[in-house]
Amino acid sequence: MEQEGILIVVSGFSGSGKGTIMKELLQRYDNYALSISATTRQPREGEVDGREYFFKTREEFEKMIAKDELIEYAKYVNNYYGTPKAYVQEQLHAGKDVILEIEIQGALKVKEKFPETLLLFVTPPTASELKKRLVGRGTESMEVIEQRMLRACEEAEGMDKYDYYVVNDELDRCVEEVHRIIQAEHSRSYRNLQFAEHIKRDLKGE
Amino acid sequence: MEQEGILIVVSGFSGSGKGTIMKELLQRYDNYALSISATTRQPREGEVDGREYFFKTREEFEKMIAKDELIEYAKYVNNYYGTPKAYVQEQLHAGKDVILEIEIQGALKVKEKFPETLLLFVTPPTASELKKRLVGRGTESMEVIEQRMLRACEEAEGMDKYDYYVVNDELDRCVEEVHRIIQAEHSRSYRNLQFAEHIKRDLKGE
Repeated sequence: MEQEGILIVVSGFSGSGKGTIMKELLQRYDNYALSISATTRQPREGEVDGREYFFKTREEFEKMIAKDELIEYAKYVNNYYGTPKAYVQEQLHAGKDVILEIEIQGALKVKEKFPETLLLFVTPPTASELKKRLVGRGTESMEVIEQRMLRACEEAEGMDKYDYYVVNDELDRCVEEVHRIIQAEHSRSYRNLQFAEHIKRDLKGE
Repeated sequence: MEQEGILIVVSGFSGSGKGTIMKELLQRYDNYALSISATTRQPREGEVDGREYFFKTREEFEKMIAKDELIEYAKYVNNYYGTPKAYVQEQLHAGKDVILEIEIQGALKVKEKFPETLLLFVTPPTASELKKRLVGRGTESMEVIEQRMLRACEEAEGMDKYDYYVVNDELDRCVEEVHRIIQAEHSRSYRNLQFAEHIKRDLKGE
């Protein structure tokens, strides 16, 4: 049936483990591509242009906005972050399922522009599990952890907008579940309208 | 997340191979149950009550209709055929995904009563493949085959109402695809509203 890839937005609470799941998914299966964001922030040590980010000057980024070359963008702490359209479309046309890791506001903007986008929300099994993971990292102060929990509380209000929930209880199972969800979506009737039309004409002997 | 089973209606052209796929699915995985229809027609040789069908008298069947004990029913050639609600609900509550093999009119009636029903449509890759299979059976006259092709033509008009298309090109692949589709559906957000509510309350510390 359908050959074109599916655009997938993955969101989830900070500490849900979505980054690890996606990394593992890309290692296991070769039909996925991870979208690379563009940003005006300075590259950090070890970051490579076109791998972690496409690094842009403010002028270049604003030109991309003006030319509608971004699927979505936002400004944080005086820096732009956005998703370049060209790379995503190239990968979709090549039949790759393209994954965007962005937060809910960005996710909804993408869905508005591309209604066939699949929205996945990664969540730990419980709130206490989320807190345990954030504390377990040992990299953040209790104050930062409390802020993240408050942020999660806000983000949870947007959960209903997502198509699927993925409970990250065990990494391996979870990666397979994400793969299964995305692959099953390829058989969705509204993603295969051309196939249905073809079968209809074919049966009529047209 | 969700523990309750999913109600699945499988339809498809005569000759699409849907019966074989379902039989194989039930043999491979133990989380499925096949709904057993009730009918007023006489049992054929070798048919067992409660296995192929629940055999009912006309009076018994009409009592079931009156008491709203059927999910859907229809009359063909002076006999009633229908889906008893009790068995289906029992299996769903036990966490089984229950499969109903019925044609499109019945499928739409089920979807109306139970909006969360998953509708799968099984189709051969092409119309000529369908004809080849019907001819290959060697059990029907060309006249009957032409009738079945005409019927397929009508049925194809209802394809758009289904949630997923399953192209039966190769049995093994196809059985796995059906399994993947149904299992992925368990992660649908609207099937897990309680889970989302629970996470929200949990994060708020309620």
